Amino acid sequence: LRQGWPEVVYGEGKSAEQCVAVAERLVERSAGFLVTRADSAVRSALVARFPSAVENAVGRTVRLGVRTNGAAATVCVVTAGTTDLPVAEECAETLLACGLRPERVTDVGVAGVHRLLARTASIRQADAVVVIAGMDGALPSVVGGLVAGPVIAVPTSVGYGAAFGGLAPLLTMLNSCAAGVVVVNIDNGFGAAMAAARMLAGRTSDAA
Amino acid sequence: LRQGWPEVVYGEGKSAEQCVAVAERLVERSAGFLVTRADSAVRSALVARFPSAVENAVGRTVRLGVRTNGAAATVCVVTAGTTDLPVAEECAETLLACGLRPERVTDVGVAGVHRLLARTASIRQADAVVVIAGMDGALPSVVGGLVAGPVIAVPTSVGYGAAFGGLAPLLTMLNSCAAGVVVVNIDNGFGAAMAAARMLAGRTSDAA
Amino acid sequence: LRQGWPEVVYGEGKSAEQCVAVAERLVERSAGFLVTRADSAVRSALVARFPSAVENAVGRTVRLGVRTNGAAATVCVVTAGTTDLPVAEECAETLLACGLRPERVTDVGVAGVHRLLARTASIRQADAVVVIAGMDGALPSVVGGLVAGPVIAVPTSVGYGAAFGGLAPLLTMLNSCAAGVVVVNIDNGFGAAMAAARMLAGRTSDAA
Amino acid sequence: LRQGWPEVVYGEGKSAEQCVAVAERLVERSAGFLVTRADSAVRSALVARFPSAVENAVGRTVRLGVRTNGAAATVCVVTAGTTDLPVAEECAETLLACGLRPERVTDVGVAGVHRLLARTASIRQADAVVVIAGMDGALPSVVGGLVAGPVIAVPTSVGYGAAFGGLAPLLTMLNSCAAGVVVVNIDNGFGAAMAAARMLAGRTSDAA
Amino acid sequence: LRQGWPEVVYGEGKSAEQCVAVAERLVERSAGFLVTRADSAVRSALVARFPSAVENAVGRTVRLGVRTNGAAATVCVVTAGTTDLPVAEECAETLLACGLRPERVTDVGVAGVHRLLARTASIRQADAVVVIAGMDGALPSVVGGLVAGPVIAVPTSVGYGAAFGGLAPLLTMLNSCAAGVVVVNIDNGFGAAMAAARMLAGRTSDAA
Amino acid sequence: LRQGWPEVVYGEGKSAEQCVAVAERLVERSAGFLVTRADSAVRSALVARFPSAVENAVGRTVRLGVRTNGAAATVCVVTAGTTDLPVAEECAETLLACGLRPERVTDVGVAGVHRLLARTASIRQADAVVVIAGMDGALPSVVGGLVAGPVIAVPTSVGYGAAFGGLAPLLTMLNSCAAGVVVVNIDNGFGAAMAAARMLAGRTSDAA
Amino acid sequence: LRQGWPEVVYGEGKSAEQCVAVAERLVERSAGFLVTRADSAVRSALVARFPSAVENAVGRTVRLGVRTNGAAATVCVVTAGTTDLPVAEECAETLLACGLRPERVTDVGVAGVHRLLARTASIRQADAVVVIAGMDGALPSVVGGLVAGPVIAVPTSVGYGAAFGGLAPLLTMLNSCAAGVVVVNIDNGFGAAMAAARMLAGRTSDAA
Amino acid sequence: LRQGWPEVVYGEGKSAEQCVAVAERLVERSAGFLVTRADSAVRSALVARFPSAVENAVGRTVRLGVRTNGAAATVCVVTAGTTDLPVAEECAETLLACGLRPERVTDVGVAGVHRLLARTASIRQADAVVVIAGMDGALPSVVGGLVAGPVIAVPTSVGYGAAFGGLAPLLTMLNSCAAGVVVVNIDNGFGAAMAAARMLAGRTSDAA
Ligand SMILES: Nc1ncnc2c1ncn2[C@@H]1O[C@H](COP(=O)(O)O)[C@@H](O)[C@H]1O
Ligand SMILES: Nc1ncnc2c1ncn2[C@@H]1O[C@H](COP(=O)(O)O)[C@@H](O)[C@H]1O
Ligand SMILES: Nc1ncnc2c1ncn2[C@@H]1O[C@H](COP(=O)(O)O)[C@@H](O)[C@H]1O
Ligand SMILES: Nc1ncnc2c1ncn2[C@@H]1O[C@H](COP(=O)(O)O)[C@@H](O)[C@H]1O
Ligand SMILES: [Mg+2]
Ligand SMILES: [Mg+2]
Ligand SMILES: [Mg+2]
Ligand SMILES: [Mg+2]
Ligand SMILES: [Mg+2]
Ligand SMILES: [Mg+2]
Ligand SMILES: [Mg+2]
Ligand SMILES: [Mg+2]
Repeated sequence: LRQGWPEVVYGEGKSAEQCVAVAERLVERSAGFLVTRADSAVRSALVARFPSAVENAVGRTVRLGVRTNGAAATVCVVTAGTTDLPVAEECAETLLACGLRPERVTDVGVAGVHRLLARTASIRQADAVVVIAGMDGALPSVVGGLVAGPVIAVPTSVGYGAAFGGLAPLLTMLNSCAAGVVVVNIDNGFGAAMAAARMLAGRTSDAA
Repeated sequence: LRQGWPEVVYGEGKSAEQCVAVAERLVERSAGFLVTRADSAVRSALVARFPSAVENAVGRTVRLGVRTNGAAATVCVVTAGTTDLPVAEECAETLLACGLRPERVTDVGVAGVHRLLARTASIRQADAVVVIAGMDGALPSVVGGLVAGPVIAVPTSVGYGAAFGGLAPLLTMLNSCAAGVVVVNIDNGFGAAMAAARMLAGRTSDAA
Repeated sequence: LRQGWPEVVYGEGKSAEQCVAVAERLVERSAGFLVTRADSAVRSALVARFPSAVENAVGRTVRLGVRTNGAAATVCVVTAGTTDLPVAEECAETLLACGLRPERVTDVGVAGVHRLLARTASIRQADAVVVIAGMDGALPSVVGGLVAGPVIAVPTSVGYGAAFGGLAPLLTMLNSCAAGVVVVNIDNGFGAAMAAARMLAGRTSDAA
Repeated sequence: LRQGWPEVVYGEGKSAEQCVAVAERLVERSAGFLVTRADSAVRSALVARFPSAVENAVGRTVRLGVRTNGAAATVCVVTAGTTDLPVAEECAETLLACGLRPERVTDVGVAGVHRLLARTASIRQADAVVVIAGMDGALPSVVGGLVAGPVIAVPTSVGYGAAFGGLAPLLTMLNSCAAGVVVVNIDNGFGAAMAAARMLAGRTSDAA
Repeated sequence: LRQGWPEVVYGEGKSAEQCVAVAERLVERSAGFLVTRADSAVRSALVARFPSAVENAVGRTVRLGVRTNGAAATVCVVTAGTTDLPVAEECAETLLACGLRPERVTDVGVAGVHRLLARTASIRQADAVVVIAGMDGALPSVVGGLVAGPVIAVPTSVGYGAAFGGLAPLLTMLNSCAAGVVVVNIDNGFGAAMAAARMLAGRTSDAA
Repeated sequence: LRQGWPEVVYGEGKSAEQCVAVAERLVERSAGFLVTRADSAVRSALVARFPSAVENAVGRTVRLGVRTNGAAATVCVVTAGTTDLPVAEECAETLLACGLRPERVTDVGVAGVHRLLARTASIRQADAVVVIAGMDGALPSVVGGLVAGPVIAVPTSVGYGAAFGGLAPLLTMLNSCAAGVVVVNIDNGFGAAMAAARMLAGRTSDAA
Repeated sequence: LRQGWPEVVYGEGKSAEQCVAVAERLVERSAGFLVTRADSAVRSALVARFPSAVENAVGRTVRLGVRTNGAAATVCVVTAGTTDLPVAEECAETLLACGLRPERVTDVGVAGVHRLLARTASIRQADAVVVIAGMDGALPSVVGGLVAGPVIAVPTSVGYGAAFGGLAPLLTMLNSCAAGVVVVNIDNGFGAAMAAARMLAGRTSDAA
Repeated sequence: LRQGWPEVVYGEGKSAEQCVAVAERLVERSAGFLVTRADSAVRSALVARFPSAVENAVGRTVRLGVRTNGAAATVCVVTAGTTDLPVAEECAETLLACGLRPERVTDVGVAGVHRLLARTASIRQADAVVVIAGMDGALPSVVGGLVAGPVIAVPTSVGYGAAFGGLAPLLTMLNSCAAGVVVVNIDNGFGAAMAAARMLAGRTSDAA
């Protein structure tokens, strides 16, 4: 049913052996795999078994096989702070696995809005934008006002106290005053990338 | 900034006079308007003042000016039950205002999954799908597994008790086991349409 | 009062010694026992002491004595994903302890609804169905529309972010659009089996 | 799909005209109907149009056609206080529509536990028990310890303050210390009856 | 104890007679009063009795006596949307009652961030800034990054669905990524002004 | 201010050294002390330093000095299940420290109501009753109907899933259908005892 | 079971006819009654039928028969603000119905702590203290530090925004830093009085 | 933008190496740094690298460079209990980093209000007051009534059960009956100090 998309293994709670076994089965059947939420033991085991696989330690992923060509559509992955990077890297790896090109714009939280505005051109050039923010989760509202294309907001569990594990930015994003911003689950960089893939399937970059 | 999109007036809490005044200002400046969350007094006043405007009583909207041409991209608006229709009609009217073509598939709640499966072909043909459901909010998960394109989920405040005004389907949709489903605010048919417009801007129908 | 049912020991927070002691007391008095939520130390101690006891590592149970005969009523235990298996196995072991026959149908989450439909006949044949799902918790709504008999829904704490430890599927199931679906506590595979036992006490399988 | 069960119309938010129209369509097709959540205007219109229909003002229902015969299985409907009666009557009417016989045991809240114990025999005789309570929602835990058969708990929105519209008794019931008690949505007398119908379909009374 | 500050009467739930009576007692004792949350009946009665009192229909207040002189410190009252105006006007009236000068900057929601930036100079000139926003509540985070002085954030109950009566912007503001932003209760324009008065008591405008 | 009552040290998060130091200061000044929430290291250090002190490992307390005489008022400490015992023992130790006599009635959860009724006489004899329960928290409602004297309800964090760390029994108890039942914080055995001490200060047992 | 206490009718949602009927039945059987949560229609009907009954319009009660004699124990009913008075009067009427003497101390909210301290002697003299507060609910913590006897805290639904219908003061009171303060449901003046009656049954005033 | 303020590094989740690297970069550029939420490994590494840096073990900070002169404005940091000290020390260190003088008033919880009143003069003398409290969070309401200047309330996650990780005191403070009290996030001693810095920037002490 999900034709044309890679198999993504959710590594949370799976042992290194289990992950390697699933990966082997996928490699037999197809061209590649992506394992997300892989702790360092899982990542080491996968890279040892598949030397050509790419480990992303920040994003906690291991990926084998890339289908992205030069004309691939681009997705801008925008983050508010450095603590949001693990979610951004999970997103970027999933985009690559789907044949899309991630472009990162980092550390442009709204409390320093001029840093964000300085990057407006790069953000507008992308075919879709994923905006990742914790705490106040305000960034997608500003970005949504700067670009006309799709904006996918990802709340993160970054923060403490009244952040309530990501509930605060989740509610912020669901109530975004920028019309047409859409939201995925807390920390779900994978889901944001899959949403972009649904939107851009088969498209080459507008910028290309 | 929001170039190419219509002005949409949020009618909630505005009097008939206020809505007519805003509409007049918009008509002076541009080709049309859409007023949402308009009660019957507001709707009557707008239609009286702008006889060519279209009233949608179920969706509680009044719209003036349509930019949709025959080749417009299509958006399938799928609803679980009849109580979800007001949100679906608000969505459909906003799609029309954005130059997109809504196609309605109604009454296909997951408790009668064969009714939904019978409509799979129509749903797959659309360029994007908006899925609207209250109570258990389960419909987007099933639809997300049936189509490869964009799926925008809208929880509704339909239901009682542990539905908690739409919280139940909202959480369901944020946790959809179909990867890449995106979510907007409870009852936000307008926002779902704007999200589709962000995705499909400038595109003609794949089906065309 | 609870005549005819086995004693079930809730192992959470009990030491291996405490569990063995309780089990010994039960064996003196009756034919068997079931210990649930038993960590591996508890399970090892019980199996060492009662060599004929059956350990279920996935379900985290140890059981001694089965009263199920060939004509026992059957309960279909349906799960959405592999992470739901511990709850399913706790349920299956409790069913066995109550003299009922569990039949497992696994990995039929609603995002791949055709996999579920392929199993419809097996599910319909059972005298009762237990449906176990985390994340969106959508599976009981679909199953409830496929079968006419009792459907007992068990939300699991599988998931992250807006799953809120099982709250999301719990609310989904309480609001199921399939009429007459009933719900037990999050991760309560034991409770679902006991509910089935209340319904099927003294009955032989309809399928028999 | 739901073969053998009556059509039940959810009257909330429907006009008298809409309800009569739906009822007419059902009567053309089948032997009867049940309209729930019907306000007095809806009820009057239905009774005027179908003089043989039965109005239940407390339960806010109108029902046409009963299939219950003398040997029907019985369901005991137990309530804690008088304010729980509307939910109990909705349940009783739905039971009748499903061919089951309701037996009412009222005003047996746990703060006067001897009043409840005095009714133990009647409660045990039924084929299933529906227990309806608001506020502390404690009644199903006590009843669940008194009977071996199915116990379906219904929290009600009766109460104020920390009852939070039924959340308090809902949580109580999900955490019932009586094993195997199952729960439906707040105020969902209809759902409790349908659950009983799923359990007792085709059975004659044990007591008969 | 609260020396130097005006008496502010909370009009919610008080009748016109009660409010006039309290106002009369205050006028006997002192130079003026402010009644907040006054519905139109209360406002009419107060203005009829005290013809020199000032009614603010949007802010739902009536005020008698102003102590503001030309050199008063200024407080910039910034609002995201027009629906936030009642809270802003309650705030402005309370500022006036405390001898401070309100300066309004309206309709500068973050989805159109350039409109906000165009007003930066005016906002920076004030001795303190009150920022009022509903829905995503993102505005204080951006303003907090633009000014070095005190920023008092007021969430409003504007919005629907997952705004949860102001909970969403409240959490956003408590988690503001702009350091040192402080928060008051939902819709509490009065409290924000009193906070400014605590900060600026006895100060003349920096801009003066 | 709190004349006549012992000093109670809250051991949570304090080191063994800190606890011994505080205890030494108290012993210098007065006749005794009670340390609650003391882990085993803290308890060992206290008992080593004050050999006549009494350790209660289940209740996680160390107490020095008892003022209870034979005529002391009695407080019945009733628990639903064995997992509630730590809270009950913390309560009993605090009662002793306040010169009251605890009488324990354990394992009388409402799912086996006859076990509770068999103890009615003992419960009624006490001058006050503390009722401790987790999960459904139903026990105080039944006890409140059996005795005419003070009933202090303590919810515990025992349970999982929808128990939400004690929220479920807390809400149950606040909504008790037995009039005049009062509630303290989750797991607060100490607070319940202090409440009893406030009620019974200077009284000898009614039973005496 | 509840020997010696008056029958209290909960008037919420009952018609004037229903309340009069219940009252007549009670008068036949006993010496009196108390109806709480009685709207003005119910109160008028009761007073018309029972001319010697006492109406309390603020407390929304009607009471017939008082058993208080001169030596009755006294309960001090302390309130933070004028909006808390309805709950205080419901409490006072219930105290009278139970043969206890209420003494009111009003308008002593903690933001003006010296007003409260000026009343310390009166508060200490009572046999028990009921403390009623909304919004921050801080008053019981201060009162609990001033008196050694029983303190019963009642949160009220007074306030707006983050008061969440009384949730804020409820949580405050459950977490009171004054040991041994007990809590009843939001707005439950009746329950606080019944708690006092449980504590003081059969006692004459200490002050007497 | 944030001219004149020190760089503050949020140490949570950063390694010792990362923190030292950031600190080195800051020291190259400017006169100093403050690292907050630094565990003991981070603190040791920073002090080893910058021997003149000041470690605050309770506050979990390391600070290099103080700009406070004798005439600096003062901020009184008031705490309810000893468990609130980590937040107070984080606040004090941030104040010092901003050139303000902290004055500590500790252990003045409202359950012993006379201890607090004995410190009134010291508290009133400060240019601003930060009030830190967990559990009931009542202290800011009392302090807010004692002083006319700015009061910044900080809820802490101290407590258990219904404290819900600081939610209880957060709500208390947002609903403070003392007008003009402002609130920051749970445990956010840093934010409270930055708020004071926004208010007092460039001011010398009123007391000076
Ligand atoms: N990081 C992630 N977050 C959420 N879902 C994921 C993630 N990674 C993979 N998935 C989903 O989990 C499914 C695989 O689950 P599993 O069979 O347990 O490995 C994939 O098909 C994805 O839909
Ligand atoms: N996994 C489980 N989840 C919930 N309740 C259980 C579970 N296993 C056993 N129980 C219940 O716990 C009771 C035994 O508790 P205990 O006496 O603490 O061992 C049994 O009678 C069951 O009702
Ligand atoms: N709009 C408002 N929101 C919150 N508190 C208010 C408001 N207006 C007045 N108050 C407070 O309410 C107090 C007066 O309450 P009352 O005595 O009931 O009129 C004043 O001293 C203020 O502290
Ligand atoms: N204001 C009140 N709040 C809570 N419970 C009440 C109140 N007034 C009466 N009750 C309780 O409600 C019971 C009567 O309920 P009812 O039979 O519906 O009149 C009494 O026995 C009291 O326990
Ligand atoms: Mg941000
Ligand atoms: Mg659905
Ligand atoms: Mg599922
Ligand atoms: Mg009950
Ligand atoms: Mg905004
Ligand atoms: Mg219990
Ligand atoms: Mg108060
Ligand atoms: Mg405090």
